[in-house]
Amino acid sequence: MLDSVLVWIEKNRSLWMHDLKEFLAIPSVSAKPEHKGDIQAAAEWAAFYLRGAGLHATLVKTAGHPCVLATTPEGLCRPDAPHILFYGHYDVQPAEPLELWNSPPFTATIRDGKIFARGASDDKGQVFCHLAALAAWKQIAYELPVRLTVLLEGEEEIGSPNLRAVIAENADRLASASTLIISDSAQFARGVPAITTGLRGLVYYQMTVTGANTDLHSGVYGGAVANAANALSTILGQLHDNQGRVTVPGFYDHVQVPDAALRAMWKSLPFHEAEFAEELDVDQLYGETGFTTLERRWCRPTLDINGLTSGYQGAGAKTVLPATALAKLSMRLVPEQDAIKIAEAFESYIHQITPAGVRVKLERLSASPAALTPSTSPAIAAAVEACEEGMGKKPVFVREGGSIPVVTWFKEMLGIESVLLGFGLPDDNLHAPNEKLDVECFYAGIRTAAALYDRLGKMK
Amino acid sequence: MLDSVLVWIEKNRSLWMHDLKEFLAIPSVSAKPEHKGDIQAAAEWAAFYLRGAGLHATLVKTAGHPCVLATTPEGLCRPDAPHILFYGHYDVQPAEPLELWNSPPFTATIRDGKIFARGASDDKGQVFCHLAALAAWKQIAYELPVRLTVLLEGEEEIGSPNLRAVIAENADRLASASTLIISDSAQFARGVPAITTGLRGLVYYQMTVTGANTDLHSGVYGGAVANAANALSTILGQLHDNQGRVTVPGFYDHVQVPDAALRAMWKSLPFHEAEFAEELDVDQLYGETGFTTLERRWCRPTLDINGLTSGYQGAGAKTVLPATALAKLSMRLVPEQDAIKIAEAFESYIHQITPAGVRVKLERLSASPAALTPSTSPAIAAAVEACEEGMGKKPVFVREGGSIPVVTWFKEMLGIESVLLGFGLPDDNLHAPNEKLDVECFYAGIRTAAALYDRLGKMK
Repeated sequence: MLDSVLVWIEKNRSLWMHDLKEFLAIPSVSAKPEHKGDIQAAAEWAAFYLRGAGLHATLVKTAGHPCVLATTPEGLCRPDAPHILFYGHYDVQPAEPLELWNSPPFTATIRDGKIFARGASDDKGQVFCHLAALAAWKQIAYELPVRLTVLLEGEEEIGSPNLRAVIAENADRLASASTLIISDSAQFARGVPAITTGLRGLVYYQMTVTGANTDLHSGVYGGAVANAANALSTILGQLHDNQGRVTVPGFYDHVQVPDAALRAMWKSLPFHEAEFAEELDVDQLYGETGFTTLERRWCRPTLDINGLTSGYQGAGAKTVLPATALAKLSMRLVPEQDAIKIAEAFESYIHQITPAGVRVKLERLSASPAALTPSTSPAIAAAVEACEEGMGKKPVFVREGGSIPVVTWFKEMLGIESVLLGFGLPDDNLHAPNEKLDVECFYAGIRTAAALYDRLGKMK
Repeated sequence: MLDSVLVWIEKNRSLWMHDLKEFLAIPSVSAKPEHKGDIQAAAEWAAFYLRGAGLHATLVKTAGHPCVLATTPEGLCRPDAPHILFYGHYDVQPAEPLELWNSPPFTATIRDGKIFARGASDDKGQVFCHLAALAAWKQIAYELPVRLTVLLEGEEEIGSPNLRAVIAENADRLASASTLIISDSAQFARGVPAITTGLRGLVYYQMTVTGANTDLHSGVYGGAVANAANALSTILGQLHDNQGRVTVPGFYDHVQVPDAALRAMWKSLPFHEAEFAEELDVDQLYGETGFTTLERRWCRPTLDINGLTSGYQGAGAKTVLPATALAKLSMRLVPEQDAIKIAEAFESYIHQITPAGVRVKLERLSASPAALTPSTSPAIAAAVEACEEGMGKKPVFVREGGSIPVVTWFKEMLGIESVLLGFGLPDDNLHAPNEKLDVECFYAGIRTAAALYDRLGKMK
């Protein structure tokens, strides 16, 4: 039956492209209040499409933007079909800066075999691959190969503030699923499909150093009283040693180096440090010594300053001793690290190294652990076969440096493991101008999704 | 005659206050291009006021903002009157952060016996004390007690980039002056007038660290490529040792500790570290070990970060690896240090300690040496008497932590020594929100300036 579905998918390329463009045309920017109506429209569009595939789809109200929740009604799948959960998000990042786009962000435009639009890859385009695959199954087979629950979120790009509540409220309908499918990652490279089996956690702080009660003249007061910007720099300058290692005591205590087999597998991946450096326009890459660039991204914890603000920031010179200095700072964690313990160790270390004459305030904005997902399981085996069927190649197993908190939440709240299988490419310009999805990746994504549900349906 | 002038000054308090407010209402912020017209207006206002005192006043064009140059025409002073030069600046620091002002910075507002406005003390308020004194002399005596040349600059707060050229071009008119009077310093404390005999020099840099060619996702790229904000912090965190000493090689090479007599004199001044700390709202003062707070301000070089900018500075969390990070940074120098050599040593050290993977750009915005001025001379004797007459007390002799490069330039270019006699107080919030000048300091300043010209006119 899958063969007929795949033929149908190929025959209807222009239909899928038309529908994708319609979905991408809705500017569902979750961060901006003026797009509230568009967010609602995008949710309704997705629900409508799911209904076309035979699912029972409703909008679930939250304190913020709605979720789309769809399930297979009686008769749309075998009664004994495995229960599979698909999660995606229909909201997108703001398109700004608009002047850097070569075509309008909400008018999907095909150039050089690529579909350019905000959301083309993250995540509307990849979600749509699943919607199209389900529609094709329904059209050809009159049923779906799995019992399916689809959960589409409208707040992923603003930190999923209401998703845990939705999961908790719908636990009854979700908990019996054996596997969570997510297509919000990427292939490793063009022609190298990837299953992502590890994500880093995130601890985020805002740090405010305060010296005197007002900005002071740096001539009159310089040397007499602590300068908040000097003190902040003194603190931040001590957070790495000269090997690029984080100096927070205990930071690496439980961190394990991946086994030789995994390191060897990663080394074999088609990744070229020189090309990567050239793409980023840096003379050389930089990070913790003793690890490859992929290892530093995938299995080493890091500490990064995300923002700095203090004193005079305008043109020219102003001789001021800043009264306050602020840093935004995040740590990416690996699975062996306890997010709360790391956060506490960080706080204690900062207070210990804060120079005399200033006060430091630490605001913890998030603390979520890393996640590892299985690399062997019936669902993973199904995903591997789906890649071969839909993309013509076995996938490699990789990790991601970023965080997808929903993976952790489904595991912790409902005990469900995830399979992270993306169709896009690493150069899709996520969160940036000229986001795109390669046309061939798009059709391969529909095929792969169709094959994935086929194989998942045959799991014992 | 001085007595009549002083009576007139007292009688016309409301006139002086009105005129001062008018001068302060012009937002003559030299650092900001949008205030170019205001700078011009402030220069014209001052020239107009000087004409009212009988002087011949013109605006001198420069490559930047104009200077006001005024001289006594024939008949406005005795032919044999000593030639005195008065220097001040009519430009002001930016008023930001505006939200910390308790009244609008360019609407002078009197509260608790203080005039709050940007420039109230630095330097428009103090310059105006001289303008008012001259107007009073002209009104009462129909002449001035000295042959006077007034030079008002519009670029002092941006490092006086064009002043040397103005001095050079007008050397003929300036060189015959015996003394340069400047009121751009402060009294030592309330009721303790001071003559300043030492100023620190200033070397100012803008430092820009650049990593990748765009901001990157801190999850995906964190650990893989240098973070400009991390690198900047690493650099800045190495500029002081744990004794508060600057680590730039050679920084202290020629720096001398003042002799025991001078240190003892400074120790005898009415300065209380605990009160000073309390005033600044800090638990303890902070700076180089081994020196008193006054010594650290007056005779020790320092390095201060004046501003920091990088990455995300809005509310909440954004997980970004900043592509660039910028610091504003200044060093205050003491007389034994060569400003250019220190600047070069600094640049070389920064390049040496810059981590791999980033580029650093250093823009030198100013480099001027420290200055020492005489503490005994006929002009100093005149200033001492003027303090007794106008402020009711003999002055103490102090140094200042700040920089007034013009002192060095007049000495080096024309051989003219300066007398630094300020009317404001150390808590005037120079360069900071809520800058103020005490109302009584203002009127005492006018009296003192009137008396100063009287005594200078009687010098042999």
